[in-house]
Amino acid sequence: MSEVKYYWEDLAPGSVRELGSVTVSAEEIKDFAGRFDPQPFHLDEDAASRSIFGGLCASGWHTCALAMKLTVENFLRESASMGSPGVENLRWLKPVYPGDTLHLRHTILESRPLRTRTDTGLVRSSWDMFNQKGEKVLQMEGYGMFGRRHAATSEEIARLEAAPVKG
Amino acid sequence: MSEVKYYWEDLAPGSVRELGSVTVSAEEIKDFAGRFDPQPFHLDEDAASRSIFGGLCASGWHTCALAMKLTVENFLRESASMGSPGVENLRWLKPVYPGDTLHLRHTILESRPLRTRTDTGLVRSSWDMFNQKGEKVLQMEGYGMFGRRHAATSEEIARLEAAPVKG
Repeated sequence: MSEVKYYWEDLAPGSVRELGSVTVSAEEIKDFAGRFDPQPFHLDEDAASRSIFGGLCASGWHTCALAMKLTVENFLRESASMGSPGVENLRWLKPVYPGDTLHLRHTILESRPLRTRTDTGLVRSSWDMFNQKGEKVLQMEGYGMFGRRHAATSEEIARLEAAPVKG
Repeated sequence: MSEVKYYWEDLAPGSVRELGSVTVSAEEIKDFAGRFDPQPFHLDEDAASRSIFGGLCASGWHTCALAMKLTVENFLRESASMGSPGVENLRWLKPVYPGDTLHLRHTILESRPLRTRTDTGLVRSSWDMFNQKGEKVLQMEGYGMFGRRHAATSEEIARLEAAPVKG
């Protein structure tokens, strides 16, 4: 693991990160689909051209995995990431076709300490992925757990326990 | 594609399908993580044993991809599936470890025609994936589009347009 640059305290709500780009090939689309999503429109050009997608396109889970790849390589790798409990509002908005170059934007929406672990904080983020035409192909929101630079103080925990429960 | 057995009309709300099992190996976990989620707890036994997961575990996106594999092989392959607009309430509830055998259950929650395409219907489903101990490791809800056996009638569309918008 690289040196930790981002602890929970360093992840400010409102901050936006451009997490780079990745280009996906027909071979990669078919390889992923063959392993995990063997539907005709992800595997076979002819069948795909007759589908509502109009051509071979990536499994939605492949697109999510590519977003994760960019997130790890360009952000989480330098963070005290401790995994994620889940994702909301996952939307596959446009098909991803062979040769598409996908760009990922990450926005921190909300940040709060964990009540149950003084060494960990929670961050709610959104991910937006765009193709080379600027069309949004993927969006999702998710929680991530991050190690803290400094453990929560008893005052912080008391404030937290007095506040209404969210999320 | 196999012969179509399930059109939209055949997918009744309340119906539950057991979609089989899959066992995941350490090699598969590391291979997926190396491509898409290269965090230490998905790649390296030693680093993972020091993480909150206590040992090497699968990327959450790998678990989703395995759920998709079972869904395609044991259900969508025989259906008039036309893809999915998205997923809600995706939760990674327990880590998935090497050697775990994961079983998938699919429940149809809701079904409605599409206003905009008389040849297509929408189905809202939930997926629940359990390990060999019966612990739920993954849950999610999603919409799927399916071809219809018979196009919507004008009466059906009129009823639909009179109904409150949901979803």
